[in-house]
Amino acid sequence: MAISQSCDATTLLRRLRAGELTAQAVARLSLDQIAARDRAVGAWAFVDPASAIAAAQAIDGVPDKRALHGLPIGIKDVIATADMPTRYNCALYADPPAMADAACVALLRQAGALILGKTETVELAAIGHVARTGNPHALDHTPGGSSSGSAAAVADGHVPIALGTQTGGSIIRPASFCGVWALKPTWGLVSTEGAKPFAPSLDTIGWFSRSAADLALVLDVLAPPTPSSPVPPAGPVAAMDPVTLNIAVWRTAGWPRAERATVDAMANTIAALQRVGARVTELALPAHFDGLAQAHRTVMMAEGQRSFLAEYRRDASKLHPRIAMMVEQGGGFGSADLRAAYDLAAQARATFDAVASGYDAVLAPSTIAEAPHGLAETGDLLFNGLFTLLHVPCVNMPFHRASNGLPVGLTLTGPRFADARVIAAASAVVRACDAAA
Amino acid sequence: MAISQSCDATTLLRRLRAGELTAQAVARLSLDQIAARDRAVGAWAFVDPASAIAAAQAIDGVPDKRALHGLPIGIKDVIATADMPTRYNCALYADPPAMADAACVALLRQAGALILGKTETVELAAIGHVARTGNPHALDHTPGGSSSGSAAAVADGHVPIALGTQTGGSIIRPASFCGVWALKPTWGLVSTEGAKPFAPSLDTIGWFSRSAADLALVLDVLAPPTPSSPVPPAGPVAAMDPVTLNIAVWRTAGWPRAERATVDAMANTIAALQRVGARVTELALPAHFDGLAQAHRTVMMAEGQRSFLAEYRRDASKLHPRIAMMVEQGGGFGSADLRAAYDLAAQARATFDAVASGYDAVLAPSTIAEAPHGLAETGDLLFNGLFTLLHVPCVNMPFHRASNGLPVGLTLTGPRFADARVIAAASAVVRACDAAA
Repeated sequence: MAISQSCDATTLLRRLRAGELTAQAVARLSLDQIAARDRAVGAWAFVDPASAIAAAQAIDGVPDKRALHGLPIGIKDVIATADMPTRYNCALYADPPAMADAACVALLRQAGALILGKTETVELAAIGHVARTGNPHALDHTPGGSSSGSAAAVADGHVPIALGTQTGGSIIRPASFCGVWALKPTWGLVSTEGAKPFAPSLDTIGWFSRSAADLALVLDVLAPPTPSSPVPPAGPVAAMDPVTLNIAVWRTAGWPRAERATVDAMANTIAALQRVGARVTELALPAHFDGLAQAHRTVMMAEGQRSFLAEYRRDASKLHPRIAMMVEQGGGFGSADLRAAYDLAAQARATFDAVASGYDAVLAPSTIAEAPHGLAETGDLLFNGLFTLLHVPCVNMPFHRASNGLPVGLTLTGPRFADARVIAAASAVVRACDAAA
Repeated sequence: MAISQSCDATTLLRRLRAGELTAQAVARLSLDQIAARDRAVGAWAFVDPASAIAAAQAIDGVPDKRALHGLPIGIKDVIATADMPTRYNCALYADPPAMADAACVALLRQAGALILGKTETVELAAIGHVARTGNPHALDHTPGGSSSGSAAAVADGHVPIALGTQTGGSIIRPASFCGVWALKPTWGLVSTEGAKPFAPSLDTIGWFSRSAADLALVLDVLAPPTPSSPVPPAGPVAAMDPVTLNIAVWRTAGWPRAERATVDAMANTIAALQRVGARVTELALPAHFDGLAQAHRTVMMAEGQRSFLAEYRRDASKLHPRIAMMVEQGGGFGSADLRAAYDLAAQARATFDAVASGYDAVLAPSTIAEAPHGLAETGDLLFNGLFTLLHVPCVNMPFHRASNGLPVGLTLTGPRFADARVIAAASAVVRACDAAA
């Protein structure tokens, strides 16, 4: 049995729990795929096959099969691991200090997952050196960033699940470019302890997978159950009927910059939804929403200035010049700009939640188009930064292809803390597209 | 020369930089005071005298004298240090993992400070086991919490500066009870990387000192310079003239619960300000401000549920039952409550900033009264949680005494990012009180 795009974590887990597969066998399949492919793809910053096999054997020796029993998971190399180095793709951390497991890594291990290795990242998950990773669908195209290795590793069949982080568009953009599912949860829902901070009021742990069901699987482990939730509990993600879907479309102020692949993906999805009988409503949000992209940039740069101050003072020459400049100038924003950005964001969050609560989910672009050629830049966060600032859950739905065959995704979002509902709606949207095809 | 309440960091630093004192001599004075007093006070979770002397010798060997050259500083034991254990006063961390220096600790070391040791804390800086620390002014009274050891160590002359953290009232309350200066900066101004998260949208690194000038000294090291700031730059904190002060008074919805010591402190301060000719205006804030204390509790408990989930799953029996219950129930709040709390807080932040910008600073209570008897509880956060939620800078001014001789402080606050202005105003308020006395 190969671990491939056709085999998601939910399927693997069923076979692991049934005893049809051992954790060790699954780990070997992952390691074989990495050995065969990673010289070309460059998704991994650290993998130690012997340790991984030993850890898988230990999991096989545990009598009770836990929620993620034996699933191999990749961890973006800005998230701390006790048993593997964490280097942030930053020269300052070439000789990394000992660290404890990040909270999310500890939760995965407690659930029986196998932490397989560390995936390549843009420097400090920010705006520095890019990852060496290529897009598995076309190696001379960017996989997106900053969670480049995690997206590529899942897309290329190395692991069924990988963790990333998003402060601007670092999960949804690479998911769109690499053609995989991803969830950037509601801000604050998953502890970021042990992930390198960039802009704490934006930083979010998320993950990549090969199915919508897998997104919910990991959410159930990393987020605590919330009592008296106003949104339906997770449940089986197949539960929403495409026919009864009530979807809003918000193209955002960036829409005029969307290119052919994204324009087609939106048009095709809307047409498919309408064909199966779903309701589709175009949203017009208040004018102050047009300021969100700039507000996002203000918050990111101003908070980044504080986050990287200690690195800068330690040895600025070992930071990428763009990161050093961020510390020196904070993006040029003063505290009045920052207060205004915070207050605009807060106002828009309340408004967006109120509007989005009237629909099953809100459809939006994920990226301007498919992955651009070249590895020097990781693409634009045009359609991501504002949602990160809104703190809302975002799912990348990976089911479209550009005319050159490269994937392009769309975002499904909703009110804060409606993560499970958005995942369920995303699954239903994909079934609507399948039914209409 | 004794390191005592009469000798602040600014004074020590002048003598260190002039070569009148060595870092080693200052470290020995600190260690002597700890040796003489800490069996009774219990402020320290970890001090290794030999390592401290070696580190001081290393500082003496550095030719250039940096911003905090040779100053001994205590670090609350929820803030990670590479060379000392970090145990969070939590049984789960009895055998603590290796950690890198927290960002704030790295910045202090880069500025030439001597990290002297770790100070006692309430479990996880949250709602668990209290510190063993007694109030130096009356050992059978609480020093307040959760930054109990840091406040007591500064009050008892062990160190001139100590770092703490505040999520509810964990800096301002112990500063009030122990009679020391403290700053809880604007949220986000100082990186919290490496401090144990409790409620990330509230968690703030702050510090205790023996003068207002010392608060600014540390702020200049831990916060990056902000371009085009709307508030006057730090500068010498003696710059504001008490005669021209324009102070607002906000008693908050909790005022009816204020007791004699706090009522007297407020009345005396207002009278002193008026006597020197300062303007004093009582504020009435909109009714929704009355909901801030409850909103603070909602945010703290709901975010705390996520922050301690990994510890809970690792071994709930080693967490204090109140922390375990927070993880199980999140305070009973659902995500609708949490969204409402976030949105109320954001609305109040913008309003408070706009109102407070019309004054040099806003005077408020720090605590209900002086430190209560007994060490089992650390006091009430009634007058602190709402300011933590507002993200505004708070200074504790320690110049009042209750009728039993115990200290009681008052809070001076202002708009977000007006930290330096609030410090300067606090210094002027104290001079007004001195002049009027």
